[in-house]
Amino acid sequence: MNQFGQKFRLSIFGESHGEAIGITIDGVKAGIPLTVQDFAADIQRRKPGALGTTTRTEDDIPVLLTGIYNGLTTGAPLTLLFKNQNTISQDYKAFQDIPRPGHADFTAHAKFQGFNDPRGGGHFSGRLTLCLVAAGVVAKKILETTSMEAKVLSVGGRTDIEKAITEATNQGDSVGGVVECRAQNIPVGLGEPFFNSVESVISHLAFSIPAIKGIEFGAGFGAASMRGSEHNDFFVDATGKTATNHAGGILGGITNGNELVFRVAVKPTSSISHQQKTFNFTEKKAENLTITGRHDSCIALRVPVVLEAITAIALVDLMQ
Amino acid sequence: MNQFGQKFRLSIFGESHGEAIGITIDGVKAGIPLTVQDFAADIQRRKPGALGTTTRTEDDIPVLLTGIYNGLTTGAPLTLLFKNQNTISQDYKAFQDIPRPGHADFTAHAKFQGFNDPRGGGHFSGRLTLCLVAAGVVAKKILETTSMEAKVLSVGGRTDIEKAITEATNQGDSVGGVVECRAQNIPVGLGEPFFNSVESVISHLAFSIPAIKGIEFGAGFGAASMRGSEHNDFFVDATGKTATNHAGGILGGITNGNELVFRVAVKPTSSISHQQKTFNFTEKKAENLTITGRHDSCIALRVPVVLEAITAIALVDLMQ
Amino acid sequence: MNQFGQKFRLSIFGESHGEAIGITIDGVKAGIPLTVQDFAADIQRRKPGALGTTTRTEDDIPVLLTGIYNGLTTGAPLTLLFKNQNTISQDYKAFQDIPRPGHADFTAHAKFQGFNDPRGGGHFSGRLTLCLVAAGVVAKKILETTSMEAKVLSVGGRTDIEKAITEATNQGDSVGGVVECRAQNIPVGLGEPFFNSVESVISHLAFSIPAIKGIEFGAGFGAASMRGSEHNDFFVDATGKTATNHAGGILGGITNGNELVFRVAVKPTSSISHQQKTFNFTEKKAENLTITGRHDSCIALRVPVVLEAITAIALVDLMQ
Amino acid sequence: MNQFGQKFRLSIFGESHGEAIGITIDGVKAGIPLTVQDFAADIQRRKPGALGTTTRTEDDIPVLLTGIYNGLTTGAPLTLLFKNQNTISQDYKAFQDIPRPGHADFTAHAKFQGFNDPRGGGHFSGRLTLCLVAAGVVAKKILETTSMEAKVLSVGGRTDIEKAITEATNQGDSVGGVVECRAQNIPVGLGEPFFNSVESVISHLAFSIPAIKGIEFGAGFGAASMRGSEHNDFFVDATGKTATNHAGGILGGITNGNELVFRVAVKPTSSISHQQKTFNFTEKKAENLTITGRHDSCIALRVPVVLEAITAIALVDLMQ
Repeated sequence: MNQFGQKFRLSIFGESHGEAIGITIDGVKAGIPLTVQDFAADIQRRKPGALGTTTRTEDDIPVLLTGIYNGLTTGAPLTLLFKNQNTISQDYKAFQDIPRPGHADFTAHAKFQGFNDPRGGGHFSGRLTLCLVAAGVVAKKILETTSMEAKVLSVGGRTDIEKAITEATNQGDSVGGVVECRAQNIPVGLGEPFFNSVESVISHLAFSIPAIKGIEFGAGFGAASMRGSEHNDFFVDATGKTATNHAGGILGGITNGNELVFRVAVKPTSSISHQQKTFNFTEKKAENLTITGRHDSCIALRVPVVLEAITAIALVDLMQ
Repeated sequence: MNQFGQKFRLSIFGESHGEAIGITIDGVKAGIPLTVQDFAADIQRRKPGALGTTTRTEDDIPVLLTGIYNGLTTGAPLTLLFKNQNTISQDYKAFQDIPRPGHADFTAHAKFQGFNDPRGGGHFSGRLTLCLVAAGVVAKKILETTSMEAKVLSVGGRTDIEKAITEATNQGDSVGGVVECRAQNIPVGLGEPFFNSVESVISHLAFSIPAIKGIEFGAGFGAASMRGSEHNDFFVDATGKTATNHAGGILGGITNGNELVFRVAVKPTSSISHQQKTFNFTEKKAENLTITGRHDSCIALRVPVVLEAITAIALVDLMQ
Repeated sequence: MNQFGQKFRLSIFGESHGEAIGITIDGVKAGIPLTVQDFAADIQRRKPGALGTTTRTEDDIPVLLTGIYNGLTTGAPLTLLFKNQNTISQDYKAFQDIPRPGHADFTAHAKFQGFNDPRGGGHFSGRLTLCLVAAGVVAKKILETTSMEAKVLSVGGRTDIEKAITEATNQGDSVGGVVECRAQNIPVGLGEPFFNSVESVISHLAFSIPAIKGIEFGAGFGAASMRGSEHNDFFVDATGKTATNHAGGILGGITNGNELVFRVAVKPTSSISHQQKTFNFTEKKAENLTITGRHDSCIALRVPVVLEAITAIALVDLMQ
Repeated sequence: MNQFGQKFRLSIFGESHGEAIGITIDGVKAGIPLTVQDFAADIQRRKPGALGTTTRTEDDIPVLLTGIYNGLTTGAPLTLLFKNQNTISQDYKAFQDIPRPGHADFTAHAKFQGFNDPRGGGHFSGRLTLCLVAAGVVAKKILETTSMEAKVLSVGGRTDIEKAITEATNQGDSVGGVVECRAQNIPVGLGEPFFNSVESVISHLAFSIPAIKGIEFGAGFGAASMRGSEHNDFFVDATGKTATNHAGGILGGITNGNELVFRVAVKPTSSISHQQKTFNFTEKKAENLTITGRHDSCIALRVPVVLEAITAIALVDLMQ
């Protein structure tokens, strides 16, 4: 299932080292101005290059393949393509026999009987989040007044983030992190009472992002340690504004107009330079593995703009 | 959107103080023996009565309305009904004007322009999780060899759970908790590579349960503080078994055959006996509110069987 | 798949001789007045009793089980139940061995490995169209200004309809018919460009009605014999009104504001009093079969109100 | 809604005179050999060039963009692209003001507030059926033993098809036709009892093909003139084979293993060389219109391979 959404419907495709990756968005209303430049800022934010990120560089300029006429959306499906250029396909075949710990090598092989494209993770690559970012740019345009901002709160459990990354990188290791997203000016009443709560839709999308292993809204896991008298947010005016916001802007699965707040846990990148133990599935014996190649040591750094994107996508999909 | 699922499709309906609540399951294979007795154990586990739970008692015997013939499923939609009997409809109308902090009163009223049924929370009531439990019973039957068990790990941040509840109850307050679910003997290869990862599907369902505000898989938020060398689970045999299980049984969104492990954060019940501040939306002024009536002081106690149910539902829906 | 719709979502359930049949509609907006009386006229039109229809009589008064509060829809799922009362379960088991020609006995048995409920056709019964009629009543209320009317055009290829039926009935036989539906005051722009054309959505629903074997829009099969110069409807004013309406109100899959016109072919009822040849699947030999029991000799007579219902359902589902 | 399917999920995109058209298929099982050559025969059959078809020529060689590795499907989404090359964009803008009779000009403009791409019909072009043909090639590979063949039965109501077309073409006119599709070796039990009958799914897809205005299964509209004693197909052996096949291989919405038979009515091409009356929506007055440019005079000739494609797609989607 590589499709998502009821009204703003995404269909994602492509592999990390194939010819291209892309996304088709069905349900984009007609008349929205959209150019390649509109995507530049968010795509730049997702790009590697900073401390702790991979050295693979792609220009990542989207091809607006369909659904645009005279610089405006037409109401027909909008297809965005990203060509893959800077690919180095090393011997990924080895990972079919000797799967890397923490990677999808084993499960992809098992699910697709070994027919999956293993190069660079294939369809399982974090590179596909580029398509989410692009869809997020479109969704943000539709939302207009709603603004959102995500940022890394901590890395390896520490708030001196740069230092934590440098240490891990120097040791040939990787490190996880926590990323928070906040959105303002959200209409009251988004979300559905039962299966499509705002939390359900956002978490569904968030767990599509590789490396996300947890999500919490408002006080989240902290709420589990609280009393009701402490957690309940009381209303202070007729707009529904509350004195505190332990609910993270959502009551009964529906937005209450307060700031939407959620955090995700990002696991440490699985690819590390350390020698690791694993199992050789062909020869049926334990084996040591050393991974070479380019990779992020802290994938959490690249998550903020993706979180904003899925938030925008979720909100647009929930709108009438 | 009160429907869920691709192959094991749920459609839920009803209100807490209406005539009945129920669920229709479409996509149940034919020939499964199913009687009222099959539901008894799990429904009993969800029932109130224990320390910290409401005094509302319902017999909660399901009516197997459709889809059964001679005690076996027919392949046609299976509809299960639960009559509401022990309802005391106090003046819920007041909550339309003066919404209770932490409740869906405000958002339900806003979303449905005041036409929502406010009695006992209406369609937003935790009572509807009874339907999830019932669907879970059917899903467990289909899974056959997969077993699962959920339990409360902590309440109010403490592991002396009973004491934490007694203290809160005595103070007219409520308290949150953390619940964990573990499942064994899961086939390798469930889950879809992008939008329908196992985490996506389980979290989508989990956040349909009222009061859930966070979810984490495997090491979860703990992973954010870890190094890759510590977090990576290395394989130890040809079945895909790993030495550790920080991934919680899921790699690349797909089950790897190891134990499935996840935890949810349950917020403290919103209804407390304490006097609380809130806002009178009709008279446009601050107001104090004291909630009477029956309610749980620790809703987390009733969550385990619901978590098992959504796990079973998710796994069945992801099966080919 | 017993579910239909994107925004006005139907979930249908039940068997002809079970306890009840019913439908849950998700996506009904809040605040629509709805009482049992609203259903009376359309349900009466579907009822048997007239020439050529079965003698099974049911009061068919809907139970408005959920989604209604104070006589108004709440925005939560609307569940409507119809109890089955006047059932005579003869030896339907025989039809598992010796399937009736033209019936679903053979395919239902094969698809569900013999676990299907055979009584009165079980879930395959035309009785389930009662649920469509009920959903149509709700859809008509939502449409407000759009009106629609369906009627039998011919029976057995003749327009002296009563006579054709009397002759068939007297000979212990059944007869088919053609039913036409016309709808006025339809908004311009309903329907989607590719897969969800108006014709696609209406035909999808129409072929859910047992016994329908063909559908045509506007000139339909007649268009296949026409020239473009004859078929093209030219526009006569700025509302999009056309001089002729060979397109049946749909261009490019989208409503053009002209009258929506379509016809369906209804096959003759499969149950006839004649002795018929068939095959005994248990004893593996040819066999003669005589069907007793109550049945319509011209099911087409009961189709008009069902066609109106599916038209209203389709239009509501296609609305933004 | 440019998506279709439950298990074999199509997402279609592109415009007639844009850069490309294409389709993404999600749910293709892994390990199917697939090359550009596999598409050649069916694409050739759809091509214009024959009597009565347009002179626009495209090489129509598919780009297998994603989902293929080492010549085999990977289980990830399969994206097929067709570049548009031989486009002549005349002044289509005029059709926004003066819509062509029988075309989607008016409805596309109204639905998308004038933002639709009008060149060559844009997203509404019959050129997009090329994507259906391509998806059909994949579906036929999956079906393996099922074979199907479609052919033109009549043109302009006549069976001397060539002559009928020549006459219409010579007169600057177009003509409609009837196309029939037959499929053999279909498994018993495909189709769902209520909303997803085989007829529902096939007709849903058939009416996505521009110019289709009617569909009938088996005896179809002929059944409306028949008696039950004449129409009922009696079983002759234990495989479910019937003596006649008025049901067209479908009973109760489910395949019975007999030949699947259906016919569609194709309207005459809307573009004709005749001067036609229409309305100038900008100047609000009647106007005469003469259409130049390349077009088919009998689009029915190109429909057979598309019908086969949607049949294969429908059957694969209905398979477990």
